[in-house]
Amino acid sequence: MTVNVIKIGGNVIDNEAKLQKFIKNFSSLKDRKILVHGGGKIATKIAADLHIETKMVDGRRITDEPMREVVTMVYGGKVNKHVVSALQQNGCNAIGLSGADAGVILAQKRPVKEIDYGFVGDIKSVNAGFIESLLNQNITPVFAPLSFDPEHGMLNTNADTQASEVARALSENHEVNLIYCFEKKGVLLNADDDDSVIPKLNPENYEKYKADGVIYAGMIPKLDNAFAAVAAGVNKVIICEADQLQLAVETGEAGTAISLT
Amino acid sequence: MTVNVIKIGGNVIDNEAKLQKFIKNFSSLKDRKILVHGGGKIATKIAADLHIETKMVDGRRITDEPMREVVTMVYGGKVNKHVVSALQQNGCNAIGLSGADAGVILAQKRPVKEIDYGFVGDIKSVNAGFIESLLNQNITPVFAPLSFDPEHGMLNTNADTQASEVARALSENHEVNLIYCFEKKGVLLNADDDDSVIPKLNPENYEKYKADGVIYAGMIPKLDNAFAAVAAGVNKVIICEADQLQLAVETGEAGTAISLT
Repeated sequence: MTVNVIKIGGNVIDNEAKLQKFIKNFSSLKDRKILVHGGGKIATKIAADLHIETKMVDGRRITDEPMREVVTMVYGGKVNKHVVSALQQNGCNAIGLSGADAGVILAQKRPVKEIDYGFVGDIKSVNAGFIESLLNQNITPVFAPLSFDPEHGMLNTNADTQASEVARALSENHEVNLIYCFEKKGVLLNADDDDSVIPKLNPENYEKYKADGVIYAGMIPKLDNAFAAVAAGVNKVIICEADQLQLAVETGEAGTAISLT
Repeated sequence: MTVNVIKIGGNVIDNEAKLQKFIKNFSSLKDRKILVHGGGKIATKIAADLHIETKMVDGRRITDEPMREVVTMVYGGKVNKHVVSALQQNGCNAIGLSGADAGVILAQKRPVKEIDYGFVGDIKSVNAGFIESLLNQNITPVFAPLSFDPEHGMLNTNADTQASEVARALSENHEVNLIYCFEKKGVLLNADDDDSVIPKLNPENYEKYKADGVIYAGMIPKLDNAFAAVAAGVNKVIICEADQLQLAVETGEAGTAISLT
């Protein structure tokens, strides 16, 4: 069977109208599907209300013990259950999961080098068998960006990486598509021109665009995750706008397609 | 197979040392098992930090829209994921569930009569088949006190009732024990004497104790749930201290046993 692994970012999570539209589109997809959602900015707001300071380094959240409690509660509770409820209300039989649930995404706490990211996880294994058992019951897993380390407990995890790892694990036994939905129409040649979508990226032009500074900053880890998925056997990897989800799944003709050739 | 449905209340949730001790005992139980947890006082504290007022009527929380967001986040995220992580760290392969997840506990929003409880759910159905599919994979479901109404979304639900409903649903195909763990050694003859445990309650002496004012207040809905479970075919229903969990499961000789005769 084909499995679509779809990631939505914080900008969709943070905008209720966009989120409801996305959920309607996602629910109408016919193939088996998995959703991985980002955290959104709400964790920062709730942390502030709880008098917990948000520390960022190069756009990444430092997850100390109080912040771990916030992201667990917000990503794993508030955001995840909101998405699951909305999917159920759209006829999609969803189940919310963190990495700890059924031990489905195991990770190790990132070793401290120059920066101590705190309780941040690097994924070690995905329990594809458990995910398959849900898909076989027509249940749609919805992952919060949280993984689990048996030694250190719940860990904050990058949702792009989590989506890539889930797609890779399932690709051993299934045809898998991985769709990254974000706020742009695709990877852009010119960040100021929304219509300058690069239709296809392969390792060769990716390296060139990076060297030329066309592709930079947060786009690089996202694309590294995308290329890792293709290299590991994921069938189709696409980066597109949330609104293009159906087009991307049905035709592959949306946003930027990532391939090895 | 025998399935033990075990409920822990807020007083265990609110005390980290008690919770860790309970989790260790629970994890060591050999039969298949299900945990239903209460909310604890932390929702009230977090609501206050978020400037959301807690309104109680007769000890019950009024769940308006802002409070629903808090209990979803706190019960479904903070408490549930904390318990699941701790169980995983004790070798128990747990999965956290709200009623919305896989549509496992469906409810209807309580009709407004004298009091508008807001987003509070009265359970209509439990998907025993899905719970069985988890138990068959040696996965332990951990329920937050949240049910789901397809029309109104997530609903705050009494954990005692939820435990009773889950036990009843499973008793159709299994031998089920239902153990309510709370802060006392059992149902007491004298609230001021911790050792005055009533060893056995049946409908006859229950009515008498109620008429005499020996059993009153919050104990009554708890016992009504317990009797409803026995009447529906649950094998053994026991109300005991959290520390007596193993004794209750293994011998039935702990706390107060509820029976029809």
